[in-house]
Amino acid sequence: MFTDKLTAACRRNHSFLCVGLDPDPALIPHPHIPSFLGEIVEATADLVCAYKPNFAFYEALGPPGLEALMETVASVPADIPTIGDAKRGDIGHTAGAYARAIYSTFGFDAATVNPYLGYDSIEPFLKYPDRGVFVLCKTSNASSADFQDLLCRPPSRGRQKAVPLFETVAAAAQRWNTGGNIGLVIGATYPAELKRVRALCPDMPLLIPGIGAQGGELALTVRYGTDAHGERAIIASSRQVIYASARADFATAARREALRLRQQINDLLASTHDGA
Amino acid sequence: MFTDKLTAACRRNHSFLCVGLDPDPALIPHPHIPSFLGEIVEATADLVCAYKPNFAFYEALGPPGLEALMETVASVPADIPTIGDAKRGDIGHTAGAYARAIYSTFGFDAATVNPYLGYDSIEPFLKYPDRGVFVLCKTSNASSADFQDLLCRPPSRGRQKAVPLFETVAAAAQRWNTGGNIGLVIGATYPAELKRVRALCPDMPLLIPGIGAQGGELALTVRYGTDAHGERAIIASSRQVIYASARADFATAARREALRLRQQINDLLASTHDGA
Repeated sequence: MFTDKLTAACRRNHSFLCVGLDPDPALIPHPHIPSFLGEIVEATADLVCAYKPNFAFYEALGPPGLEALMETVASVPADIPTIGDAKRGDIGHTAGAYARAIYSTFGFDAATVNPYLGYDSIEPFLKYPDRGVFVLCKTSNASSADFQDLLCRPPSRGRQKAVPLFETVAAAAQRWNTGGNIGLVIGATYPAELKRVRALCPDMPLLIPGIGAQGGELALTVRYGTDAHGERAIIASSRQVIYASARADFATAARREALRLRQQINDLLASTHDGA
Repeated sequence: MFTDKLTAACRRNHSFLCVGLDPDPALIPHPHIPSFLGEIVEATADLVCAYKPNFAFYEALGPPGLEALMETVASVPADIPTIGDAKRGDIGHTAGAYARAIYSTFGFDAATVNPYLGYDSIEPFLKYPDRGVFVLCKTSNASSADFQDLLCRPPSRGRQKAVPLFETVAAAAQRWNTGGNIGLVIGATYPAELKRVRALCPDMPLLIPGIGAQGGELALTVRYGTDAHGERAIIASSRQVIYASARADFATAARREALRLRQQINDLLASTHDGA
């Protein structure tokens, strides 16, 4: 089970930090991407609960980039979960090909998916019972309000109270989660929405990007993102860790930054629990 | 401009047929994917208005699949538009990497994108003024009703009439289309919704999958999908054309099927215009 693997890694490494592995050739202080990311992984593998490569940065480099992605996934120790941040969404038959790509071909433990196409676009991912599926719910970007915040109600039930689209998605994910392998993606930039989604989905792993560069508030992220046991939050940071130094000391600098973030999160969690 | 290239190809080939190039190793009667698809392209290039490879089927094959995708795009004659059916959607910085991947690295004339993340996830694609951007609106699958049909209204305006999410997306796309390079994706399986979207977006190219294998009604697709001049519908068929024969005559069979579909569409268009 993905959730078991995730919880084990969190506990073993005392960490809710997920490091995003997003190669940007303009920022990488190393000529070879898989070696650069491999050194980052080696320097941080005892400090994280997961790694999260985003497909976009590899695809932009063409087939050699996808080779680099395979090497990067292979460089992650077997007991640390890997999340393929692909945000895929397509009709059933095609979604099946994406699930095969992410889980089988590239070997990820989990995938991020887009809910716009509805249940049958997500079902092919759920059919891998040992893998995780993170459904986009309230994303960290400014324009997430364009559609995710619209007040929605089903067309068939006249007077049902309208709720924001992202809440409808969270409630649907909760219903679909019969296999216990669904999580949600909520941006740290929206703490009130994070609180609301945690209330709707008390047991789900929440993948929370948007701290650091995107300005999300870490204290509220820790408070609202964790479950009743102070677990199941996956707090993602990418550029802040892997580009901590643009020089030859990039791996040491990434470790220092990962240590600092892990500590900051754990301190906030301790004070949240003291106060509770 | 993408729309000009599309219109020129439609007129030159008297065709609204877009052939989907989706390699499925279980169905391909040829050991080498790029050669198979190259022969399909060669046999149909005078009969189509566009080609549409879906990334999922190439990604499932790993880096060699992405190599095959590059070869396939390169095999399409320069005057036929290529649509990268990727359905991508990510936050701005990452969406920029996807736009670069689809337009620059893989060389597509257009991309399909998912609107769930809002404007800033689509803007990086719009910044390529000569390329096309097809926004998912009402998709052809059964579960598209799960969210796309919800009745929505903005949270700030109390009594504004609620409309289905897909109509809100169509209206937003219409507003965002200042560069004239946006189109929409609407499934042939939903003719009433297609009619409604054509009314909201009278000039936009509409990419319409879901005929044939998925059961969409071709007569209504032609009637409601085309604009006032009987143009700007892109009717996509994939498996029905490229897997028309499982034997060595696959290219001839694909040509026969493409000819048949093109004729059927053109006959329906003629009778629609006679009746109008």
